[in-house]
Amino acid sequence: MVRLDSVLNKISAISTALDGAIWKKLDAQARPDRSLGRLEELAFRVARIQGTVSPGIKGKTIFTFAGDHGVAEEGVSAFPQEVTHEMVANFIRGGASVNVIAEFYGIDVSVVDIGVKGDFVGMAELIQRKVAHGTRNFVKEPAMTEAEALRAIETGVDLVTEKVKRGVNLFGTGDMGIANTTPSTAILCAVTGADPDEVTGRGTGIDDATLKRKRNIIRQGLAKQKPDGRDPLDILCKVGGFEIAGIAGEILGAALHRCPVVVDGFISTAGAMIAMLFEPAVKDYIFMAHQSQEPGHAEMIRWIGLKPLLDLEMRLGEGTGAAIAMNLVELSTHVLNDIASFEEAAVHSPEDR
Amino acid sequence: MVRLDSVLNKISAISTALDGAIWKKLDAQARPDRSLGRLEELAFRVARIQGTVSPGIKGKTIFTFAGDHGVAEEGVSAFPQEVTHEMVANFIRGGASVNVIAEFYGIDVSVVDIGVKGDFVGMAELIQRKVAHGTRNFVKEPAMTEAEALRAIETGVDLVTEKVKRGVNLFGTGDMGIANTTPSTAILCAVTGADPDEVTGRGTGIDDATLKRKRNIIRQGLAKQKPDGRDPLDILCKVGGFEIAGIAGEILGAALHRCPVVVDGFISTAGAMIAMLFEPAVKDYIFMAHQSQEPGHAEMIRWIGLKPLLDLEMRLGEGTGAAIAMNLVELSTHVLNDIASFEEAAVHSPEDR
Repeated sequence: MVRLDSVLNKISAISTALDGAIWKKLDAQARPDRSLGRLEELAFRVARIQGTVSPGIKGKTIFTFAGDHGVAEEGVSAFPQEVTHEMVANFIRGGASVNVIAEFYGIDVSVVDIGVKGDFVGMAELIQRKVAHGTRNFVKEPAMTEAEALRAIETGVDLVTEKVKRGVNLFGTGDMGIANTTPSTAILCAVTGADPDEVTGRGTGIDDATLKRKRNIIRQGLAKQKPDGRDPLDILCKVGGFEIAGIAGEILGAALHRCPVVVDGFISTAGAMIAMLFEPAVKDYIFMAHQSQEPGHAEMIRWIGLKPLLDLEMRLGEGTGAAIAMNLVELSTHVLNDIASFEEAAVHSPEDR
Repeated sequence: MVRLDSVLNKISAISTALDGAIWKKLDAQARPDRSLGRLEELAFRVARIQGTVSPGIKGKTIFTFAGDHGVAEEGVSAFPQEVTHEMVANFIRGGASVNVIAEFYGIDVSVVDIGVKGDFVGMAELIQRKVAHGTRNFVKEPAMTEAEALRAIETGVDLVTEKVKRGVNLFGTGDMGIANTTPSTAILCAVTGADPDEVTGRGTGIDDATLKRKRNIIRQGLAKQKPDGRDPLDILCKVGGFEIAGIAGEILGAALHRCPVVVDGFISTAGAMIAMLFEPAVKDYIFMAHQSQEPGHAEMIRWIGLKPLLDLEMRLGEGTGAAIAMNLVELSTHVLNDIASFEEAAVHSPEDR
């Protein structure tokens, strides 16, 4: 397994050397300047990352990391904990939302057991990298050890490296884990100092009484664990989750291999915050898929500083939002490569008026 | 050619008989209720339109209607008028933005000369239905006769009917016509009473002096022609455009054949306003693709009363926004059909907690 230290040493901000050439190519196309808006921004960023004015998407993978959470025993979710295990089986059978949406777009979904409670048998397609049978309840004790956190992150990096070797060059993040909006909200509060009363949401759809309990649990956990908001490893150990650590590793891995990575919703963005705390330069490789309905997500996005592509009022996770946005990233490469220039199309430009 | 009267007589609001069954199917899926947000709304609306809980998209066509505008002689565009003709040739060669985006999504682009100045030779794929060589300058005289307006609308209906016979059941609108934000803005002002100073935008990218001239031209044209804001035929004749009339006809045709129709940007939405003035029930068949950067578009959308799916900061037309949104409409049918239920997936639901 790769060591996190060496990964962080190898990640660097992308070169701006081609910026002028990329915009020149876009501006020469037979249409008003910048008229394709964010598709041009996407094309520009992908071209920069790939270091070419003719970028291309060769293979597309979403990693859906699944993990359980000790804090689920506090009754913070609308669903019973065994649903994490059941949904992993559903992912492998291809019946879940992320399967349907990713299949529509020709995106591979790789499901990773990085910390589910309980074992899986007879699932050849499941990537079994279990770090532990769920985290510990962070109201009572730290969620994971430092060794566990590192192993989960490094697993994410390694999985990306394996896919890059097979030609994948566009990644998406995804998650499954009953109660995982609770650690994600705790991470948000630890990093930005946000008040749990203001950013805690209903996750899968909890009622008012459960929402009140969830807020208190997050506040108690933070008060007891006192995570250092500038130290991503400390945050993960104290209030994190294995799938969140795996997502952070996936993002670091994508940056390591100079591939764009599309970050899904609330849980994935918590992972992106962790990745950016490890190495701010990963921001150059991140694309925010969509604005989630989970209220804390807007605050996370402000901290990340990248505008989401979509707002389809979704709040599901799994990688569903990432799949849709990955398709827009892929589209943008066709926009950059295939639209004819004024000259090629023999179309007069504004200067000819 | 079909007569508009008979089309309007046959359009009706869609049945709500299946509403409960469609939501029941969506709510049974193994995920939190309504967690796929607007994808569920899309699936619901398409299922309603098709009258089945298992809808499907069989064929997808964007009509890109091209027409010229007499008002272009007032110098209201950043581009010279011959660009309409040149861009039609570019569409036919497949090099334009709408070609590239539609091809990515497997959508057919049918280019219609409904009123371009000048003739086309040797373009077998161009649908030649020219009503006139451009409209007349609405600052001086009405843009078109009633017979011309009706012919352009009925052409749009007929084109949809022909495609429906070949299995197309999802339509998108598109436009090309130098200066066509000017008549579109005039239509907006005629219908809603908006002030040209507040809703006139820069179209393809005009400078401050041209913007000032464009505002004055729209104000003068409206003052001289006095279109009746409740009479769509009167508006088209006085300040309309042939491509706008064609788009209105396409939307009426889609409603006639009970097919969803995705409305592109500013010009297309002017066409949708005309269609809705003819028959308010067409709203049930309309999907607003995206929020355009053209400032008057937000006012148009408020009048239409349907929230756009995307905001990618685009301002191009041609059908580019419609193509992207049509793909989301198609995706939504897979969401409704293919996501496994709690029962099928053997996943516990919230009631089991």
